[in-house]
Amino acid sequence: MKNIYNIGLIGFGTIGAGVVETFNRNLDLMEQKVGTKIRLKKVVDLDIKTDRGVEVDKNILSTDVNDILDDPEIDIVIELIGGYEPAKSFILKAMENKKHVVTANKALLAKHWEEILETANKNHVRICFEASVGGGIPLLGPLNESLGANNIQSIYGIINGTANYILTKMTDEGLDFEYVLREAQEKGYAEQDPTFDIEGHDTAQKLIILTILGFGIYVKQDKFHVEGISKIKQEDIEFIKNEMGYSIKLLAISKIEGEKLEVRVHPTLISQDHLLASVNDVFNGVYLVGDIVGPVMMYGQGAGMMPTASAVVGDCLDIMGNTERKNIYGPNNTEVKKIKDIEDINSKYYLRLNVIDKPGVLHTISGILSNYDISIESVSQKKKDEGQEVPIFMVTHEALEKNIRKSLKEIANLDFVKKDTLFIRVL
Amino acid sequence: MKNIYNIGLIGFGTIGAGVVETFNRNLDLMEQKVGTKIRLKKVVDLDIKTDRGVEVDKNILSTDVNDILDDPEIDIVIELIGGYEPAKSFILKAMENKKHVVTANKALLAKHWEEILETANKNHVRICFEASVGGGIPLLGPLNESLGANNIQSIYGIINGTANYILTKMTDEGLDFEYVLREAQEKGYAEQDPTFDIEGHDTAQKLIILTILGFGIYVKQDKFHVEGISKIKQEDIEFIKNEMGYSIKLLAISKIEGEKLEVRVHPTLISQDHLLASVNDVFNGVYLVGDIVGPVMMYGQGAGMMPTASAVVGDCLDIMGNTERKNIYGPNNTEVKKIKDIEDINSKYYLRLNVIDKPGVLHTISGILSNYDISIESVSQKKKDEGQEVPIFMVTHEALEKNIRKSLKEIANLDFVKKDTLFIRVL
Repeated sequence: MKNIYNIGLIGFGTIGAGVVETFNRNLDLMEQKVGTKIRLKKVVDLDIKTDRGVEVDKNILSTDVNDILDDPEIDIVIELIGGYEPAKSFILKAMENKKHVVTANKALLAKHWEEILETANKNHVRICFEASVGGGIPLLGPLNESLGANNIQSIYGIINGTANYILTKMTDEGLDFEYVLREAQEKGYAEQDPTFDIEGHDTAQKLIILTILGFGIYVKQDKFHVEGISKIKQEDIEFIKNEMGYSIKLLAISKIEGEKLEVRVHPTLISQDHLLASVNDVFNGVYLVGDIVGPVMMYGQGAGMMPTASAVVGDCLDIMGNTERKNIYGPNNTEVKKIKDIEDINSKYYLRLNVIDKPGVLHTISGILSNYDISIESVSQKKKDEGQEVPIFMVTHEALEKNIRKSLKEIANLDFVKKDTLFIRVL
Repeated sequence: MKNIYNIGLIGFGTIGAGVVETFNRNLDLMEQKVGTKIRLKKVVDLDIKTDRGVEVDKNILSTDVNDILDDPEIDIVIELIGGYEPAKSFILKAMENKKHVVTANKALLAKHWEEILETANKNHVRICFEASVGGGIPLLGPLNESLGANNIQSIYGIINGTANYILTKMTDEGLDFEYVLREAQEKGYAEQDPTFDIEGHDTAQKLIILTILGFGIYVKQDKFHVEGISKIKQEDIEFIKNEMGYSIKLLAISKIEGEKLEVRVHPTLISQDHLLASVNDVFNGVYLVGDIVGPVMMYGQGAGMMPTASAVVGDCLDIMGNTERKNIYGPNNTEVKKIKDIEDINSKYYLRLNVIDKPGVLHTISGILSNYDISIESVSQKKKDEGQEVPIFMVTHEALEKNIRKSLKEIANLDFVKKDTLFIRVL
């Protein structure tokens, strides 16, 4: 047993400052838990001038990453610069220099998982990344450890705080997408270019990591369906909330269906009785089902300086508690042979069609749906305004997505149907 | 590294059968995760004749506990017989024989924690008990590990499925306590003698364990306030739900208030906006706040054959992954000096008084409350029926519990007030 662990931190931005602050506040507690001294030996960033709002010994600051990577005393490297390069090179070199690595870099893990894992294993070091999904929520640890006796059946995650904030605001306050997005940008909940969050890419990267942990399967992002929330209008929210009693969430789904795995990211209607419907604002929640444990949900702050730092430092403690532990993430005895094409899934669907109101519209539409084996659970056309554009809301019974798409294509060709038909899957 | 771990199971009841079934189903998965062979070598119970509904090799069944305790090949002993004796003797002897112990025995841990921990440490073996609180929900593991960088500030747990089922049914279906209890007994959700669950004793034992993990403080059950749900009437539920927009839950609370720790179990009003209010039926949820991570909640099935088995077997895997890990449960550098007396807490209160309706009743009661520095947020007397017994519902602003108790004692002495005044704390 060592008597001190030295840590090097690469990246002194928001999360990095949170990590420093966590060591400042709770070092005693942590040293007592691990039973050794813990020292944050070096903090590296290109910018070491800017005041980060946390106390830090100036002597441990450096702009040279090799002060960490080449220091034989440093046991654990925390990578918090994000992005692909130079983060990847730093991580690989740290591992080659026999250092354990802790990272929150979901983009990098999602893209280069195999190379990173292989390098870690070849060098007999650990790679930990609890902070990469769900911020501070204990998620990957429990999935990999406490639930280790389970074959995971399904994972449903609300794992993007920005999208969830926007949908919550639209639901609670009856506001439009664009308005809420602007407000979120002003509050710092959304980036100036919000594409990454609202179009589901961030959620997809996190889902790739959850899918590795849950099913032992590494799926690249171009291999599954990813759809964002930008097409959702206030009229959809109103109908879904008031007429259906559902909530709408940007959901990451990964679940076994026979020999195939469904992996998908899209807005999803969730019954208000379901616990996931109560995951609001910037909070994250991951609901999963194990074959032994049944349903389990973990909830908390999925982002932010201190919650993310909690997970990063938790990983450091985990490594100190067991440097020998193998990097076993997910089962490799899976029965799953393939990723299911989105066109082959079955689901209930919510449809919103914008049509020019005239007699026979509904009859024609329902005829087409019926030709594709799609039966209608409910239909509602509240506004009656002949010759004008009005929305029709429909909920289908379970149907094959391929059929939904084909029928909507056919419906889109009708002269009284406007372009922006929307369909949303129902959980 | 060993190449096989042998496990001995003491207690082949419902949970024991669940453990056997888990090994039957997912042994491959587990062996691959741990990287060694795993063998359930012996299952001991007084009754090995009864069919438990799971496949088990007859040759591993025995009625002699020493077939486990004295077998030098057995590495891990699972204790699932429950109760104080002989469970305690078995656990202590297993440890003295250098075997790691996994138990779901909350009663034993809550009562004899110090002796059990000390014996484990003296013999350099691990003691794991994830299944003792919240069944299969990953709870103690995350609290002790993923959240290791945090000083825990507060823990709020709905950790008794029976009580939660009864309160949910009363709320959703407008049924009386006695009716729902009988129904729960028929369905097997409540024991024939339901005292242990509905009067909060089970919740209290689990809270003792959570308090060790969260705060490093071991509090005996007679040192804190424990109150059940049997006094709650349908009229309370109705008012709380419809007039206040609150849910009522049997809540275990452990939280730091300055230098003191509040530890208490009692029915509690929770705003329907709070995630804990969505923990319904037999489900459990534990909401906690860490100084770094902020709020986190874990949710799932808090009892039952397979969920509990998931936690028991997860503990076995944890031990196999790290037999050297020290039994460090909770911080020992706590600032907390004392347990706060329930009379010294501050809370909002819901009050239900049954009075003989006559002019001036409300005036007299509010006068007494005011004398004790208690101000009223709302008051409602729906029925007006002079000379007859009617309920008055009140909600106070934050007040000192000592004052609530004194004022209610004084109010109880008024000739127009009937005996069964109820007060419930508001979260």
